[in-house]
Formats: sequence, structure tokens, C-alpha cells
Amino acid sequence: MNEFARIATYFAPLAKEAGAFGLKDDAALIAPASGKQMVITQDTLVESVHFIGNENPALIAQKALRTSLSDLAAKGSNPAYYFLSLSLPSSCGEAWLTQFSAGLKQDQIRYGIALMGGDTTYSPDRLVITITAIGYVKSSKGMVQRSGGKMGDLLYVTGTIGDAYLGLQIAQGKLSHNDYLLKRYQLPEPRTIFAPFLADYATACLDVSDGLLQDLSHICNASEVGAVLQLEKLPLSEAAETFTSDRLALAAGGDDYELLFSASPYAHAKLMRDAGKAGLRLTQIGELTAGSEIKLFDHGERIPLPATLGYQHML
Amino acid sequence: MNEFARIATYFAPLAKEAGAFGLKDDAALIAPASGKQMVITQDTLVESVHFIGNENPALIAQKALRTSLSDLAAKGSNPAYYFLSLSLPSSCGEAWLTQFSAGLKQDQIRYGIALMGGDTTYSPDRLVITITAIGYVKSSKGMVQRSGGKMGDLLYVTGTIGDAYLGLQIAQGKLSHNDYLLKRYQLPEPRTIFAPFLADYATACLDVSDGLLQDLSHICNASEVGAVLQLEKLPLSEAAETFTSDRLALAAGGDDYELLFSASPYAHAKLMRDAGKAGLRLTQIGELTAGSEIKLFDHGERIPLPATLGYQHML
Repeated sequence: MNEFARIATYFAPLAKEAGAFGLKDDAALIAPASGKQMVITQDTLVESVHFIGNENPALIAQKALRTSLSDLAAKGSNPAYYFLSLSLPSSCGEAWLTQFSAGLKQDQIRYGIALMGGDTTYSPDRLVITITAIGYVKSSKGMVQRSGGKMGDLLYVTGTIGDAYLGLQIAQGKLSHNDYLLKRYQLPEPRTIFAPFLADYATACLDVSDGLLQDLSHICNASEVGAVLQLEKLPLSEAAETFTSDRLALAAGGDDYELLFSASPYAHAKLMRDAGKAGLRLTQIGELTAGSEIKLFDHGERIPLPATLGYQHML
Repeated sequence: MNEFARIATYFAPLAKEAGAFGLKDDAALIAPASGKQMVITQDTLVESVHFIGNENPALIAQKALRTSLSDLAAKGSNPAYYFLSLSLPSSCGEAWLTQFSAGLKQDQIRYGIALMGGDTTYSPDRLVITITAIGYVKSSKGMVQRSGGKMGDLLYVTGTIGDAYLGLQIAQGKLSHNDYLLKRYQLPEPRTIFAPFLADYATACLDVSDGLLQDLSHICNASEVGAVLQLEKLPLSEAAETFTSDRLALAAGGDDYELLFSASPYAHAKLMRDAGKAGLRLTQIGELTAGSEIKLFDHGERIPLPATLGYQHML
């Protein structure tokens, strides 16, 4: 099957917006919504680096899309469009593409996002996926950045932390099987539903992808503040608690795709009430401070930061 | 050097727009220009598939960027922003990145485009580059598509055809050296300067990347027309003419990044006059017809289409 037949069969059915031209043109045309600004994020996933490769192709597709949607959510934006580039090894044949595109279709409906374009090329060795995702924020509110955190702001995290770190080890056969944790690693849930809350409340936000501690350091660096983190407040899933009590390891593990954000303490009561009404799990885990240091406490006792705060791509 | 130092050292200096946040955030923010629409194109280049890998890193960077700029030009749009994702093997160290980013810097100035974001990841085997480029068209004119060609429209091509096909063979050591042709393969010239002409005159357009014949078939399919192509009118460079007189091979060779477009015959005189004034080489090479067939003629004699019209990514 050649490049053009592949696009027509598997990807054109996912691109129904007028500006995608049925993926038959060289580019897409987007007329931006009035009163809104565009938030654009681009991420690449490499087989054996970001995923193992033997996963269900639908899960690979959904993880790739969802990590981008997670970035959009963290910026307080609502997802609208995405572009997909696939570098495909020979092993990704028609059966693989059928499952991969079915996974995309499911998540396009789930998150209300439309495929607008991209590229498919041959790859001699392994699968490489790049997704560019575009969301909208109201011009009046702008984008939630990493840099808006203020001394005295409280620190919050959505959902639970460390599940994906354990799920990866389950996928690698290093820990005994647990469906819930494996799924949390293979199929993250972007907190798109939180985006409007962030736009209203957050002074700084990012999604926890490299590890909570490392991502917190990004907020601190960008906002020029320090932070206090209370490890005992870290929200863990029941499943995670059955596997480990090493909260430090969970706080340095990657792939959570939960949102870490700061908000004014004056908004705390209303924020928790609004989140509760919406059925969203939200936990206050610390606060931003003067200085530039991250201080870790466990039940009031200061503990040293680990040498590695999270995942980094070394060459 | 870790991921964050790499971004800060080599790429943050290329991202001076406010909405790029110095590449320190998860996403870029773009406030679309009023009265304009956005044209977005995304392309991936894989080492040993789209380039050899031993080229000067600046040339690899520029070729990657320019192929995207070529798509923007073909749609009648002016370039504004780009996003860059790099999957880097261990061999792409600091010296390599220094040259690669210098190449980008040079072309950002040349074409007036700003880096807004992207990703750098590790790649176990080979370099993979994805670029998403964004340009603007006036909302009143819209995007030049592949599908607007009408029966009776004349067919034009910019510059010369086949140089890159010969340049590739020179790079592979299959032909004797020629600076001009090698450069035409390694460093295409996107016809950004033509974009305003296309917006005014073209009924359909694309850039010639897979081969003139194959790309013409894309216009014919999208526009639901046939075409007559007069091989003897194909504009060849002096250098190309010293290497071959096989115009059919040149018309099926890829990587030209010239623009192939159709325009009403009523506009012909004004189009050629305007192009001449701007110092742009433009050649009428055929016309669009009824039906769906591409008919090739050489000095009035009908010749059969070759079995392969151009390059396709087969798995």
C-alpha cells in the first residue's frame, strides 16, 4: 500500500473539518475563533524511548494524542485540532494501522479534537510519532504559564501521583501485574476537564510528565520562587499504596500527566468547592515560597531532595 | 548535556517571540493576526530516507525548514512561525547542534520566520526531524488549494526542474560532481517570493516535491481535470542540460521544491509581466483539460507516461 492509499484509507476518515481538505492538500487552513488565542504544543514519542512498541497500536495512538492534550489542558486551553506525523517501520502494516487509527478516532470523539494534517514517512528502524496539538484560550484570560506562580500561592495536584511510574515497571515485568496501574501508564487521562478551572484560578501550571519534583522545579525556575512540598499529602491511589510506601520515588517518577498548579490562598475555599462540585480530585500538597529552593517535608520532618528529580533525555 | 541545557543553549536563542516564552513553557501562544487565516503544514524528514545524514548539519536544518516553507509558499501564504521536533541519536552532539542551530538562525532571518516551540528527544538509531510551519493568508483571498484548477487553465512552473534529481545522484556518487546541482538538492530555495503572485493568480498550486508528473497528477485528481504537458517546454538549468537530455526522468524526479500551478489564460499576459518585473523565472508548460488523463507531448508527438510518476514512501 503506498503513501497516498494509506492516508486515504486510515487517516482521511479522521479529518472531516473543511480546513483539512480531506488530507489531500499540502496544508490545512484554520480561521481562528474570534476573541480567542491559540495554544500550540508539539511532542515526539519514539519507540523504545517513550513506549515499548509491543503495546496495542490503539493504546500507542491514544497515549501520543493524550500527552499533547495534557499539555493543552495544563495551559488552560480547550483542544481543537491536531497534526500527526508518523515515521513507520515495515512492521506497522495494515492491521497495525487499522488499530492505530481506530484508537485515534475514539479519542477524537472523547476529547472533541479534529485531525487537520501531518505526514507519513518510512522509518528504517522504529516508530516515531510527532503530534502538534492546538487549543483555544479566551484572549481576555490568556494562557496559563509556568511563570506566574507567586510566593504564598498554594500548590495543587490533580488525581494521584506515581501510578504510571509503577505501571511502567509492571509493563517491563519488574513488578507483579496490576491492571489499574498498567493502564495508568499506558493510557493517561489528560485533565481536559480541568482547563476551565485553571483558566479561572491557576497562577502557574504544567502537566507532570517528567516527575512531580522535576516539574515542580520548572515552575519554581520559571516563576522565580521556591517551594515547600509535603510528601505525606501526596495523593496516592489505593493500588499504588499496595506496591510501595516510597513516596519519594513516586514523586520522581514520570508519565503521570496530572496537573501541578499554584493558586492564590484566597481562592482556596472556592477552588476546592468548585472542584468538588465537578467531581474532580484535587489535593493541596504544598506552597510556593521565597527563594529558589524546593524543600521536602514528610510529616513535618525535612528530608533531602533525591539526586535525580525526574526523567531527562540524555544523549 | 541534558535536555533542558540543550534547549537553553541551542534553541532558546532562536525563539525570541513573546509567545514562545523562551521555550520554557509547555506550549506557545499565538494571537492570530486580524483579517487573516492560518495555513499550517507539518512534515517529517528521516535520516537515510529524506537526507543522507553526512551532510553539513546546517544544510540538514535548512533543508528541513525550507521544505516546509515551500509548502507555505505553494498555498499563497507568508511564513510566520515554526515548531521543531528533533529525535537525536548520540552522534548529534554539541558540535553538530551548534552547526544545526546556526543553519536555522540564518534561514529564520532570510525568510522572516520565528521558532515557537517543539521537542527534543533521544533517538536510538537515527535523526528524525519534524517541522510544523505556520503562515498567514488574507481571509479575503483564502488558501490556494490543489483543487481549484479549471479546464482551460494554463499550467506554470517556477525555476527549473530536475536539478535536485541529478543533485541526489551526485551526492550518492552516481554522477560526476557539479556544485550547482548538488546545492539544488541539498539546499532548495522555497519560492516564498512567489506567494503573493499565487494568491492573486493561481487557481491551484502545490510544490514539486515527489516529482513534477506525480505532483501534476495530484492537481488533476483534486481538481477533477486532465492535463496536457509539453515536455519540450520544461525549464532546465544549463547544468542539468550538460548531464542529460532525458526530460522524462527529470519530470519524474523529486525534491525540486519549485511551484506548479494553474491560472486562467486570461491572466497570462499580466502574470508573465508581473513575474518578469519581479525578476522571477516562470514557464508555461501545458494546460488543464477535460477528463482525468495526463497527456505528455514532446514537440507535438504524444509519448506514454512512465510507469512511476515520482517518489512514494513504500513500507
